Amino acid sequence: MPKLWQKTYRVNEQVERFEAAQNSALDSRLVRYDVWGSLAHAAMLTKIGVLTEDEHRALKEALGDILHLAETGQFTITPSDEDVHTRVENYLAEVAGAAGKKIHMARSRNDQVLVDLRLYAKEQLHGIANSLLTLVETLWRFAGAHADVPMPGYTHMQRAMLSSVALWAGAFAEALLDDEQLLSAAYSLNDQSPLGSAAGYGVPIAIDRQYTAELLGFARVQHNVIYVQNSRGKVEAAIVQALAQVMLDLSKLAQDILLFTTAEYNFFRVPQELCTGSSIMPQKRNLGVMELVRARTQTVLALQQQILGIVTGLPSGYNMDYQETKRPFMEALDVVRECLEICTLVVGSLEVNVDRLVAACTFELFATDRAYELTRTANLPFRDAYRIVGAEVTAQLDRHEPLPTESREQLVERLKKRNHLGGAGNLGLEQVVQRLATARAAWQERTATFERAIRRLIDPGQNDQGGQSSPTSAPDGIQSEHGRA
Amino acid sequence: MPKLWQKTYRVNEQVERFEAAQNSALDSRLVRYDVWGSLAHAAMLTKIGVLTEDEHRALKEALGDILHLAETGQFTITPSDEDVHTRVENYLAEVAGAAGKKIHMARSRNDQVLVDLRLYAKEQLHGIANSLLTLVETLWRFAGAHADVPMPGYTHMQRAMLSSVALWAGAFAEALLDDEQLLSAAYSLNDQSPLGSAAGYGVPIAIDRQYTAELLGFARVQHNVIYVQNSRGKVEAAIVQALAQVMLDLSKLAQDILLFTTAEYNFFRVPQELCTGSSIMPQKRNLGVMELVRARTQTVLALQQQILGIVTGLPSGYNMDYQETKRPFMEALDVVRECLEICTLVVGSLEVNVDRLVAACTFELFATDRAYELTRTANLPFRDAYRIVGAEVTAQLDRHEPLPTESREQLVERLKKRNHLGGAGNLGLEQVVQRLATARAAWQERTATFERAIRRLIDPGQNDQGGQSSPTSAPDGIQSEHGRA
Amino acid sequence: MPKLWQKTYRVNEQVERFEAAQNSALDSRLVRYDVWGSLAHAAMLTKIGVLTEDEHRALKEALGDILHLAETGQFTITPSDEDVHTRVENYLAEVAGAAGKKIHMARSRNDQVLVDLRLYAKEQLHGIANSLLTLVETLWRFAGAHADVPMPGYTHMQRAMLSSVALWAGAFAEALLDDEQLLSAAYSLNDQSPLGSAAGYGVPIAIDRQYTAELLGFARVQHNVIYVQNSRGKVEAAIVQALAQVMLDLSKLAQDILLFTTAEYNFFRVPQELCTGSSIMPQKRNLGVMELVRARTQTVLALQQQILGIVTGLPSGYNMDYQETKRPFMEALDVVRECLEICTLVVGSLEVNVDRLVAACTFELFATDRAYELTRTANLPFRDAYRIVGAEVTAQLDRHEPLPTESREQLVERLKKRNHLGGAGNLGLEQVVQRLATARAAWQERTATFERAIRRLIDPGQNDQGGQSSPTSAPDGIQSEHGRA
Amino acid sequence: MPKLWQKTYRVNEQVERFEAAQNSALDSRLVRYDVWGSLAHAAMLTKIGVLTEDEHRALKEALGDILHLAETGQFTITPSDEDVHTRVENYLAEVAGAAGKKIHMARSRNDQVLVDLRLYAKEQLHGIANSLLTLVETLWRFAGAHADVPMPGYTHMQRAMLSSVALWAGAFAEALLDDEQLLSAAYSLNDQSPLGSAAGYGVPIAIDRQYTAELLGFARVQHNVIYVQNSRGKVEAAIVQALAQVMLDLSKLAQDILLFTTAEYNFFRVPQELCTGSSIMPQKRNLGVMELVRARTQTVLALQQQILGIVTGLPSGYNMDYQETKRPFMEALDVVRECLEICTLVVGSLEVNVDRLVAACTFELFATDRAYELTRTANLPFRDAYRIVGAEVTAQLDRHEPLPTESREQLVERLKKRNHLGGAGNLGLEQVVQRLATARAAWQERTATFERAIRRLIDPGQNDQGGQSSPTSAPDGIQSEHGRA
Repeated sequence: MPKLWQKTYRVNEQVERFEAAQNSALDSRLVRYDVWGSLAHAAMLTKIGVLTEDEHRALKEALGDILHLAETGQFTITPSDEDVHTRVENYLAEVAGAAGKKIHMARSRNDQVLVDLRLYAKEQLHGIANSLLTLVETLWRFAGAHADVPMPGYTHMQRAMLSSVALWAGAFAEALLDDEQLLSAAYSLNDQSPLGSAAGYGVPIAIDRQYTAELLGFARVQHNVIYVQNSRGKVEAAIVQALAQVMLDLSKLAQDILLFTTAEYNFFRVPQELCTGSSIMPQKRNLGVMELVRARTQTVLALQQQILGIVTGLPSGYNMDYQETKRPFMEALDVVRECLEICTLVVGSLEVNVDRLVAACTFELFATDRAYELTRTANLPFRDAYRIVGAEVTAQLDRHEPLPTESREQLVERLKKRNHLGGAGNLGLEQVVQRLATARAAWQERTATFERAIRRLIDPGQNDQGGQSSPTSAPDGIQSEHGRA
Repeated sequence: MPKLWQKTYRVNEQVERFEAAQNSALDSRLVRYDVWGSLAHAAMLTKIGVLTEDEHRALKEALGDILHLAETGQFTITPSDEDVHTRVENYLAEVAGAAGKKIHMARSRNDQVLVDLRLYAKEQLHGIANSLLTLVETLWRFAGAHADVPMPGYTHMQRAMLSSVALWAGAFAEALLDDEQLLSAAYSLNDQSPLGSAAGYGVPIAIDRQYTAELLGFARVQHNVIYVQNSRGKVEAAIVQALAQVMLDLSKLAQDILLFTTAEYNFFRVPQELCTGSSIMPQKRNLGVMELVRARTQTVLALQQQILGIVTGLPSGYNMDYQETKRPFMEALDVVRECLEICTLVVGSLEVNVDRLVAACTFELFATDRAYELTRTANLPFRDAYRIVGAEVTAQLDRHEPLPTESREQLVERLKKRNHLGGAGNLGLEQVVQRLATARAAWQERTATFERAIRRLIDPGQNDQGGQSSPTSAPDGIQSEHGRA
Repeated sequence: MPKLWQKTYRVNEQVERFEAAQNSALDSRLVRYDVWGSLAHAAMLTKIGVLTEDEHRALKEALGDILHLAETGQFTITPSDEDVHTRVENYLAEVAGAAGKKIHMARSRNDQVLVDLRLYAKEQLHGIANSLLTLVETLWRFAGAHADVPMPGYTHMQRAMLSSVALWAGAFAEALLDDEQLLSAAYSLNDQSPLGSAAGYGVPIAIDRQYTAELLGFARVQHNVIYVQNSRGKVEAAIVQALAQVMLDLSKLAQDILLFTTAEYNFFRVPQELCTGSSIMPQKRNLGVMELVRARTQTVLALQQQILGIVTGLPSGYNMDYQETKRPFMEALDVVRECLEICTLVVGSLEVNVDRLVAACTFELFATDRAYELTRTANLPFRDAYRIVGAEVTAQLDRHEPLPTESREQLVERLKKRNHLGGAGNLGLEQVVQRLATARAAWQERTATFERAIRRLIDPGQNDQGGQSSPTSAPDGIQSEHGRA
Repeated sequence: MPKLWQKTYRVNEQVERFEAAQNSALDSRLVRYDVWGSLAHAAMLTKIGVLTEDEHRALKEALGDILHLAETGQFTITPSDEDVHTRVENYLAEVAGAAGKKIHMARSRNDQVLVDLRLYAKEQLHGIANSLLTLVETLWRFAGAHADVPMPGYTHMQRAMLSSVALWAGAFAEALLDDEQLLSAAYSLNDQSPLGSAAGYGVPIAIDRQYTAELLGFARVQHNVIYVQNSRGKVEAAIVQALAQVMLDLSKLAQDILLFTTAEYNFFRVPQELCTGSSIMPQKRNLGVMELVRARTQTVLALQQQILGIVTGLPSGYNMDYQETKRPFMEALDVVRECLEICTLVVGSLEVNVDRLVAACTFELFATDRAYELTRTANLPFRDAYRIVGAEVTAQLDRHEPLPTESREQLVERLKKRNHLGGAGNLGLEQVVQRLATARAAWQERTATFERAIRRLIDPGQNDQGGQSSPTSAPDGIQSEHGRA
């Protein structure tokens, strides 16, 4: 295919392959976003008089065809196409005649790729937020179902104090709700329209950037045109940084589950359907998915470093280095979505070995309780009581004999006494529910605003409830992409 | 000094050094925060009846002494002290008698270090936000002062389109205002009180976590006590991630300035007072500070990786690995503050070489303008006009002769025509001013809320305007720490 | 396809996809190595009496078929196959009957994947070393062709001292030759046979690990079977660390070329066939490949971090986290190979703008020379001479007038006087040639040793020159893989 | 103090602080290396006639004084000194008169810092190699002492196959011996003399670089003078990459020990002298040092990233960014040395809980053995035997009853049958001893060569055994620095 910039010579094939091979494959994901951006741009060009109504109509029709082809996998990007923008413009030039050759007036591919990635990110984040909140709900249900199951609490991987299964699960629910706030902040950074920066220095034409921003459902225009270009990779990095926080929590969840399902801990069991085996050892049931969540957390950290490393220290203005941030960005979004879903599957399937958990709550967990008791009964300052109990417990431990335990009822009694805010006896799960509802509502509103705008963009004549009639309409497309939103 | 947990044996000295050497040095920065946290904890213990009013008074007095000593550098932490918490408790035990031995009732050092770091972070972020907004203002002033100075705009490090000095500077102002939003989100994550988690599993005592949160000026309580511990490093990482975004922008600013001050570009000059020289080459004037900003961006990225790497994959509950996150966190805060300030100094001193900038705006910058003209004059679609101009310009460039230029007036005329939102002719600097004012107000409110709480905590009898009378009072201490807030 | 470990239940499909989707795609690259490893294992099992000669023959035949199918792309791995090892064993069980079900005696997939990756790495490194040495030769030729072209030398991106094009190019040749030593050390770490570790704890069967090591052309057996498993990811990391050193040099080369081809420097030009254009700006010729080399260096650093991050802190023994190191390892090898080749293309095409280079050698480059002169003529200590010259030069520079220059002949005269080891007048290019020859010989020896072993393994009856007769023979396969070795 | 490049103006104090604050503190470690480099440079300048014998004598005396002062902590570097090179030259100018002002003839600080860091690295690596080999020996002794102690072997953190304590310890010994090879390769890269590159472009003076290389004990001259400068950070990175490999192994060792000392595993115990306690929980004995080794591995990975991130993408020639690599380099060397030593302490103190280890070798570890048996007794192919045993074992495990175990004697019998190379019954510890001896000899030779050169440099009149007479002589200094070499 001819390049948009092609003149009279052929570019070296090794160069073409080096530059476009990976990029063109990734660009197949961006077709519909490039079409949406082109629809908005064409509408704006028409509004300011650069395109006639007829030209506009021809372009809309041709762009509609592309959407249609893309949905059935018939519109792909090959290395010789260079990128999605070239492929689309070449198609338009072929199908829509002169109008196709006019569509690139007052815009640049640098501009387009920013639009495409922001729209892509929005849809992805709608889906990720949804998966995250589903996991929160699953953890909350799990906590509720095991509210009275005692568990040793660890520090330094050593038994420390009495804890509970619900307290453990609730910790992850609360962590993920905090992550949601970071995701929202990154979403907001992404929610500004880059369209109209052209190659990063604007155009001597009175384009209407506010209009295209509204058509595409962006919350605002990103003003300074140099900053628009300079923010390539930066916005992606902000999103991946928030995703890294999510993974941080999932890696801890995975590590805990891996420990708690060992023969040595034996606190939790997982149905064999979630386990995989060994080619040599007939007995093995490995929880490979949790190992991969742990490993993929490192992957996401590396992707974060990759994006930031690439964009750091570059001079202002577009540099082709930016192209190299596309893949780590898309990969991070994929990985986090899948990890959230797999964790939901695992947490939803965890079986709790109550007997073993009760037996593991050995007496040293209560050394601090005994010291507190001594402060009351013997009227001792805490530090003195601590020293007395310390000597007793140490002596007992050094005997290396089986340690005294308590009944589940006794342990539950103890749990209830930890009744301050956030303690095992006062988990605040209702607060989790409340935050969950608030977050859900916010993301549903974001998703709806976006889908409404895109629906109007594709078919301006339709009312908001519409769109069911045409197979190429946005809502269905959106549904098939992230389904769960 | 005796360790709080010390029993009858001596810990191995190599172990003591390995664990405490670095940590104790860092802890000297945390004395006042540990005192504030202890004041709040003591007040709460008194409220719930664990301490008598007399004991409370003795503790307040002794804690006041520590603040006093710390301000004059007389309260330092050595490796044999283990950490600031031990040093403070040992001091209290010595000076305040039994009350001192009671202060640790219902809390743990794990708890304290979280409180200390959150308070430390708040003060640091107040200062950093202030420095950031000062740099935004400096960039805005610089843009305003050079609004009509044309400049080549670059893509791929090649001359691309007409730009201006104001457009260039404005890009950084807008980027930093976006960073401010990420900093705010991280600040908000940090603004929850961890106090009361004890060792991460709560206590069987009816402590009042809401009360201590209010005393310390936190926006809310961080509920789940396991999550409190699990968030060690996590919150620090969120802050450093936001700081990395700031550095990303500063690295680009530095790289641009380094390029623009080379003999080859020669667009900007910097007063020699900001340059350093060579030991061998008499002529050198090096802008070392910008090179270091570029390098320290990598440092901050590495610190981000260090914190995230350390906490990723750890099992739930306190692990000593967390201690290793303290230094990268403190270092990142230091580095970013200093880099913001040095950039303000450099931007505020930049001299603009107008003649050279005008001369650098050679004719190929207007190739796109000419194509646009051709679309009008010859009624050609853009892509056809592009191809015609392309052939002309290429032929001219291949002659390798001096390229035609225009007068400053002609260039300014062209700039004015880029009058869409965010273009060189419509910079939207007034929007920058507005966002700057909003951000300033928000941070001043945060700072004031915090300082008010601390002032009351230290001297509950005082009214809000007070505090000037005593040399140990918080406001002065706060002033001396970050001065500019 | 049935899993090797499959019992009576079906594994959850989401789990299957999460674990195998990416891995199976990567495993398509490993077919021939898995076959080679299986050939060696079968030969050893036959030698110790576990397999009969007939069974051995059946397996060899079936494995030969796989090689054949793989070469024509007819033996691929799908997610439901789980991995290459399963796919191969299932094929053998189907085609070779009972012998196929015996092949896994005394080995594990953990074992196999290590073998496959080590063999893969060897072939890849043969190719990379070859590409690296070709680039060294290209740089050396370029240096030789431009030995007398003066060039400003820069420090702090400011003009510093007289340099030359040859000195500049020679610097990269020497750097890459040092990298070759690091690559060799990593190669040597990789050159030990893991086969026989089974699942990491050996087997109660008298297998002959030395024998399989020799059959596969490994330099030695990696002894301790736990260490064999623990070295997964470790060896990969060592290789990628060496590759990161290569990229470090290439990123500097790319950055220099990008600077030197700007309108401002204009020292070098690149044929337009190596450049790509802009969709909006008709005049643009962008050296995108060098930007991508710069960016991909960050990619390789991130891959290094990814591998190390994944394996760090894992407990001993196989963990599924290891699987996640396969892709970054393969990707790093691919990227570095392509970057070396593209740099060879660019360096081999660089055009030198001598006039501009001479003109850029302005008088301040000789300030140090003048100070040295003054030490002789005025008998002054260097530091005093430095101060006198410093005042003169500074005064001149502050006039902001065009700076005095010299003729090319004068400059060449000056270059010749830098005649100490490694100076522009004594480049030591002959030493480069010598090191190049030594390195070439070493890698050719490594490659030949390896290919000889594989050829014998596939067809033990053949003499060393043979192998041309059969389309499935190793040499052709090897040739088609890296061609240039 | 006056800067070497100081002219008539004062540099801005904020700039001075920003550039020199951290660097000057680090430079206090470099005094003796800067003196050694200066001694070699002065000798060379005398040899080529730039300095008279008298001047040389005056310089040697003054440099000797500095060594003396430095050893007693009386020669420190403050921010206003800028760096060690300035401090030394200023001292010489003051004490040695004109000779002091001549010392900088034909060299640059860029040159000096490279020399200083290479010499520093050599001494540090001598010490680190020694610590590493001591740990190998400790592991080997531990393995020998527990050769017959069975232990479960794990994959996926699940019990997999029979292993032994000796096999486990031996794995780390072998890993560290492989690391030694990577360290050697990095050492060799570092072992080339940069002296004489001046500012990176040589000098028009016939300096003798081979002579200074020999005086300083370098194995060879690093030729190309641009490459010399470009290798700043690169060589440091190569060393830190090798150190990262060491830490990778230590992190695994630490993670294993942390698991094996939990209440749940309880395989190993550690004397309480190596543990630290909790301020709130009287019973705690935490193995904090192993947690810190795990965490500091991440620190070293981040330092590796920091150095590589800083130097990647910089243009050729000295850039001040390089200065920022000094601290991560020094820190990595410190951290790794300390971690090696603490691991030696812990491994040397590990107590093995044999009863618990035997009890943990439950029957599922032998499922593979039973399958192998079935292949013989029932003449079944392995895959069929595997399936039969799989069904049996799964049924047993699903009963969730206590699992059958064997006696220690039976287990040892089984261990003996794993008698292939590297199996638990054929550990190859004698090979470890051999590799250890070879490595020790190589490092002792490196250390001796270096110390001999330095001794001669400081006091050329002395014979090789000498140096004991003078308190300022190098050998003592060297001894006090790393003691164990």
